Amino acid sequence: MAIDHANQEAAARILEGQPILTDVAPAADVIPGMERTLILHAGPPITWERMSGPLRGAVIGGLLYEGLARDEREAAQRAASGTVRFAPCHEHATVGPMAGITTASMPVYVVENRRFGNRAYSTLNEGYGKVLRYGAYSSDVLDRLRWINDVLGPAVGEALRLLGGIDMKSLIAQQLTMGDEGHNRNKAGSALMARMLAPALAETGLDRPNLGRVLRYFAETDLAVLNPVMAACKAILDPAHGIAGSTLVTAMARNGTDFGIRVSGLGNRWFVAPAEIPVGLFFPGFSQEDANPDIGDSTITETAGIGAFAMAAAPAIVQFVGGTPQMALEATQEMYEITVAENPAWGIPVLGFRGTPTGIDIRKVVKTGITPRVNTGIAHKQAGLGQVGAGLVRPPMACFEAALEAAAEALAS
Amino acid sequence: MAIDHANQEAAARILEGQPILTDVAPAADVIPGMERTLILHAGPPITWERMSGPLRGAVIGGLLYEGLARDEREAAQRAASGTVRFAPCHEHATVGPMAGITTASMPVYVVENRRFGNRAYSTLNEGYGKVLRYGAYSSDVLDRLRWINDVLGPAVGEALRLLGGIDMKSLIAQQLTMGDEGHNRNKAGSALMARMLAPALAETGLDRPNLGRVLRYFAETDLAVLNPVMAACKAILDPAHGIAGSTLVTAMARNGTDFGIRVSGLGNRWFVAPAEIPVGLFFPGFSQEDANPDIGDSTITETAGIGAFAMAAAPAIVQFVGGTPQMALEATQEMYEITVAENPAWGIPVLGFRGTPTGIDIRKVVKTGITPRVNTGIAHKQAGLGQVGAGLVRPPMACFEAALEAAAEALAS
Repeated sequence: MAIDHANQEAAARILEGQPILTDVAPAADVIPGMERTLILHAGPPITWERMSGPLRGAVIGGLLYEGLARDEREAAQRAASGTVRFAPCHEHATVGPMAGITTASMPVYVVENRRFGNRAYSTLNEGYGKVLRYGAYSSDVLDRLRWINDVLGPAVGEALRLLGGIDMKSLIAQQLTMGDEGHNRNKAGSALMARMLAPALAETGLDRPNLGRVLRYFAETDLAVLNPVMAACKAILDPAHGIAGSTLVTAMARNGTDFGIRVSGLGNRWFVAPAEIPVGLFFPGFSQEDANPDIGDSTITETAGIGAFAMAAAPAIVQFVGGTPQMALEATQEMYEITVAENPAWGIPVLGFRGTPTGIDIRKVVKTGITPRVNTGIAHKQAGLGQVGAGLVRPPMACFEAALEAAAEALAS
Repeated sequence: MAIDHANQEAAARILEGQPILTDVAPAADVIPGMERTLILHAGPPITWERMSGPLRGAVIGGLLYEGLARDEREAAQRAASGTVRFAPCHEHATVGPMAGITTASMPVYVVENRRFGNRAYSTLNEGYGKVLRYGAYSSDVLDRLRWINDVLGPAVGEALRLLGGIDMKSLIAQQLTMGDEGHNRNKAGSALMARMLAPALAETGLDRPNLGRVLRYFAETDLAVLNPVMAACKAILDPAHGIAGSTLVTAMARNGTDFGIRVSGLGNRWFVAPAEIPVGLFFPGFSQEDANPDIGDSTITETAGIGAFAMAAAPAIVQFVGGTPQMALEATQEMYEITVAENPAWGIPVLGFRGTPTGIDIRKVVKTGITPRVNTGIAHKQAGLGQVGAGLVRPPMACFEAALEAAAEALAS
């Protein structure tokens, strides 16, 4: 049948992707349509009025960082005034973790899908503590962003050019044999990336103290590889979008208020519903009551078949998100029920190297009643307070039901 | 009963070990009893006449490297003449992978057991291809050893001092959540070590080209951490040796001809039997017929409860040593039957973080008929041809039977 055929084509494109991390460049130079007064954010479209605390905080931080406002109050006024524009990262070939704020002068990773010629982008991971992606915008947060802009980004870009790029498909394959699922747990991938970059970084023009600082950033940042992994997943999925009749999901993303999905055969529409609040383990002093609704583009990992879909590869993650190793196994097994393919390049050792479940079919989701699983960080619901925990969440079924209805209408017309 | 009590004391000492990798120093400066004409080798004591091909090759390489012979022929004559002395690494607080040749001017890792004050040593891993540890001694092998001596060793030593050391117990714990078992698979641990050392290496006095070369060594050497892991295991086990009445194994080691074990309550005797030939997967062009009998001190990892004992943590290893992920699980489960303790610091995620099986009791081995499992590299039986594969092996039961007989005699006397 035509839908199955379209889905096979979409799945084949996902499996054929060849994402190479090639460079770091200023967002304005590489992201299509990027301009100084455009603020990209995670998830589906949203107005300032409807934004949650952490997304508002990150918008304020982005405006301060770009010099578009002098202080918090002016930034909030400007954000409400309509003199800056908001758009989803996803609509500009970009993905951002948590708030996902990406502005014109920020350096971004460049991932090229060598099979299809498209590119995708993601900011550099800020590390831990008070960070923009959780809505913090104090002066130390902005200082770190400036160091990323002035030192880290250019150095990593030069190192990547010296290396001729990093094959992200291979790197993710290695992660899955090393206890990472590529979303919440990226320790092995980050360590592999660190040791690959290190000799090339020593060959760049970086002075010795900054070389030490850049190497220390990679030594201390277990999430360093998350952003390039996300961009790789985005680069893999974009060619699968726009196939007439296909009911495969090509994006799942949350802005802290709404969860939205896009479907290959349904154009650029977002199918949205209120985001759920993740359930998980909380840092000392915080509890479930502090949790913001689900936020971030990092669900691009699950959309590409890793993250919670590859949880069987990462049994140690339960120390971080809750649950038992057996549940990690079951999470992956369940996801085979709503997907149409398995990725032979990404084998899960404990399942006898069975490929990760790939290509979410909205028909299977609605028919089985099984929504995709998502591993996630949990943001405090107030701007600027940062991460309070990590856990598990699912998208609302309403997104998939609305998309299936639209697919039925498209078929009928 | 007295034996159980002694074994509990020995096991407690193993579990209480606090191995810290503190330094790299010339063997002659730190290894007790080291001198220029002493050649330390893997496994139990052996004469030149009884040495296998790869061990002879590595002895020749060691003599050439120390300037104790001008060429292969002179080295072989000298080795046979009695003007150089051979002794097991193990009898000098040292452990070496494969041939294990350690000579006076070689740099060695220094691991301190902070709980008991003892130290253990191991050479730096040479990387892949033609290497001394597999019996190669061509000029490129010796050139690499000189680079390790002149550049790598001093740099890593300085970086370790700047870092204040690396906690090997914690590093091994992390490895076990990242798909390493710490013997044949050390990719995650090596990547973690690489990224920890990198910023400190940038702070040393290394010139820029050598800094790049040292960082490249760590980027390319998935076994870099094996040698410090082995020294950590040795440092952990030595305090458990010498407890009257204890039937726990404190060393298992092979010299390519014999497999030998030492037992806590049985003094410095080795209980030996002919080493088995490992069974596994071979590199293209090689087969089981090329395999040398089992060789190396790396069985110190299994003795300490990792390696094949922790194989459940490393399902991807079956790609390298053969078998299935299910067999990896069963390997660990079987080892609980011959051990007296579990190491709470080293949890295996897929077993619900159950501690690694620790403290091999020769009584349990003989009673159950289950010998310890060992993961291992496989050397070509001819000197200098290097590694031909990797696989699985077990010590001969005769070692354990002889030790148990000696224990019975000791009790009776």
